[in-house]
Amino acid sequence: MEKNRLEAFSDGVLAIIITIMVLELKVPHGVGLEALKSVAPVFLGYVLSFIYVGIYWNNHHHLFHSTRRVTGGILWANLNLLFWLSLFPFATAWIGENRLAPIPTAIYGCVLLLAAMAYYILQSCIIAQQGPNSVLAAAIGRDVKGKVSLLCYVVSIAIACWQPWMATCLHVLVALIWLVPDRRIERALHPHPDPKGSESPGR
Amino acid sequence: MEKNRLEAFSDGVLAIIITIMVLELKVPHGVGLEALKSVAPVFLGYVLSFIYVGIYWNNHHHLFHSTRRVTGGILWANLNLLFWLSLFPFATAWIGENRLAPIPTAIYGCVLLLAAMAYYILQSCIIAQQGPNSVLAAAIGRDVKGKVSLLCYVVSIAIACWQPWMATCLHVLVALIWLVPDRRIERALHPHPDPKGSESPGR
Amino acid sequence: MEKNRLEAFSDGVLAIIITIMVLELKVPHGVGLEALKSVAPVFLGYVLSFIYVGIYWNNHHHLFHSTRRVTGGILWANLNLLFWLSLFPFATAWIGENRLAPIPTAIYGCVLLLAAMAYYILQSCIIAQQGPNSVLAAAIGRDVKGKVSLLCYVVSIAIACWQPWMATCLHVLVALIWLVPDRRIERALHPHPDPKGSESPGR
Amino acid sequence: MEKNRLEAFSDGVLAIIITIMVLELKVPHGVGLEALKSVAPVFLGYVLSFIYVGIYWNNHHHLFHSTRRVTGGILWANLNLLFWLSLFPFATAWIGENRLAPIPTAIYGCVLLLAAMAYYILQSCIIAQQGPNSVLAAAIGRDVKGKVSLLCYVVSIAIACWQPWMATCLHVLVALIWLVPDRRIERALHPHPDPKGSESPGR
Repeated sequence: MEKNRLEAFSDGVLAIIITIMVLELKVPHGVGLEALKSVAPVFLGYVLSFIYVGIYWNNHHHLFHSTRRVTGGILWANLNLLFWLSLFPFATAWIGENRLAPIPTAIYGCVLLLAAMAYYILQSCIIAQQGPNSVLAAAIGRDVKGKVSLLCYVVSIAIACWQPWMATCLHVLVALIWLVPDRRIERALHPHPDPKGSESPGR
Repeated sequence: MEKNRLEAFSDGVLAIIITIMVLELKVPHGVGLEALKSVAPVFLGYVLSFIYVGIYWNNHHHLFHSTRRVTGGILWANLNLLFWLSLFPFATAWIGENRLAPIPTAIYGCVLLLAAMAYYILQSCIIAQQGPNSVLAAAIGRDVKGKVSLLCYVVSIAIACWQPWMATCLHVLVALIWLVPDRRIERALHPHPDPKGSESPGR
Repeated sequence: MEKNRLEAFSDGVLAIIITIMVLELKVPHGVGLEALKSVAPVFLGYVLSFIYVGIYWNNHHHLFHSTRRVTGGILWANLNLLFWLSLFPFATAWIGENRLAPIPTAIYGCVLLLAAMAYYILQSCIIAQQGPNSVLAAAIGRDVKGKVSLLCYVVSIAIACWQPWMATCLHVLVALIWLVPDRRIERALHPHPDPKGSESPGR
Repeated sequence: MEKNRLEAFSDGVLAIIITIMVLELKVPHGVGLEALKSVAPVFLGYVLSFIYVGIYWNNHHHLFHSTRRVTGGILWANLNLLFWLSLFPFATAWIGENRLAPIPTAIYGCVLLLAAMAYYILQSCIIAQQGPNSVLAAAIGRDVKGKVSLLCYVVSIAIACWQPWMATCLHVLVALIWLVPDRRIERALHPHPDPKGSESPGR
């Protein structure tokens, strides 16, 4: 019961975040192809952020799938994650309107980094409560994907000021890492593939 | 459980999309009938898009009614559908503010087409997982409505540049096709009408 | 199951409608009491509309409490109700910004009337499906409140053009009729008061 | 069932309130650090209000956890709470744009006070329905936190006009009181700590 409400609230916030971003896609004043072209950078930023929020929703879904009890610490770790995700519309709009200007790109990277750290904290809270032998701890393993993502975000922030284009490539790369299912790791974790277990929390 | 959360998230996103469109119905500056008339085109666009999102919610509802297990592929196919539906507020506002200008009309047709294709992909993913003998596969049959809709959208995009009015008639026509329940097909699919089965996924 | 999803979607839309109205409460430019006074009419309009949406949510809640099966007709009657309720933010903002100008007041009355008619249609669809001897039909009885409300809305539209103040009083009056619980009718319907039955759908 | 829908609606409204506040975090026009600095006060206001709404959601969650039946009175007490919480985005934006000007600070305090009073009324309604020996009544006890909060809000309103900075410190202080778990009170209430009971409604 407790868990259901936390999931429902998180689903609500994520659904609003993902949809509010589209409000930044302002209706252009003209009616020609030029007008359409002018919204293209904002649109591309929207696509990237939509995929990121989708990945977070997907992972959040798997994270709580194996959780039974929700403690006060998990509640606040979850709110912390939602807080950083709620900054996506702001960061996306700023980057979209300024076509990869250095500081907006660095800020976008910071928001990604802080959301990833908040996710890591939430994950650690849940594992701490379930014990080191839980299904979740086994499924996550050494969490290579998570660590590589954090590294990419840090690098992207460091280089954003003179290579904003490269920094954005890193942001796209991390999204692709999470989008493409990693079959090898899955098989390692679930040697006997069962239909339900085929989606590990790390996917 | 898994399915419930996907439905709850989709309901949230669809509820926000359907309601956010009304934000484009900007309060007119005057207080006379003239002011009211000025919002009429945006209002009509809102009505059409509201009906479309309503149809998608209705069909989504039926699609997942017969689904038990949700795979990673279905999750992403669903997010893909939600992405294209999230562009409805933008496309509706652009068409409403420019009263059937050619390019906005074509873009509206494109968004309808891409949402329909995303729905088709989602439907195919679910059928692929359930097997060709599933209730859903039988209920959809040859999916005449779906194919006619896709054709109408393609034609509407092709003619939007010199016949935007005609293109919009096609958009209205497709909405009517889905709104009006098709009793004959229903009877063919459910020879022995039972109360539950009386709503086929194609309705 | 079916019913749960319709309720969840309706809850989502109503939650967004009730919250989106507050966006019209624009932050004033000054910081003095004058600035605060300038938002007062919009605030009062917000209070009235909040109460109306609250009443609709409350009644919707009771309406579906006694419903088991949801048909295609009920789905669309519900979407029709949500459509008219979604116009509340627009009508509220227009009336609030123009302090009871005749035409905005009449439009506000029209939106109230059309939402009430949509509610009546939804209620009739549910009763038609449950049969005339259902709990819902008994609880609603002759639906005096519903009929008085419709009459008040019609009168308010008729007089809005020369008595907008009076029309608004009628709108406030109807809200009060629904807010104040009518104990006599309740007792007539539930001669043996049980804790659960003490909330009739008309409350 | 009834309770679930009230929770779902409240979750929806709270999710929208918490996310709508971020819309006030307007994208700055420049791309430099100056531009970023200009949004800092609005950002800090957003952080404070996010924490407040998070605390309310958390407490609401615990309040209804021990509730089984929902009466008409509880429904309206809940809507009353949601109404005052829905004014958070307005109050936050006004304070953020005017960097602790006296009247906006006082209004922010008023909204906090009225939301706290609405919460107190809701809590009293639920206890009244459950009886004085209920789990909830025992867990709340003398409700020291609640009373101290009300006092702080009243003081903050009184001093806001000549000490807006001090008033804001009080607002931050109350948020911290609720954020930091009070282990001593918890132990007093639950002498035999059980995993579930470790979150008291006052946390």
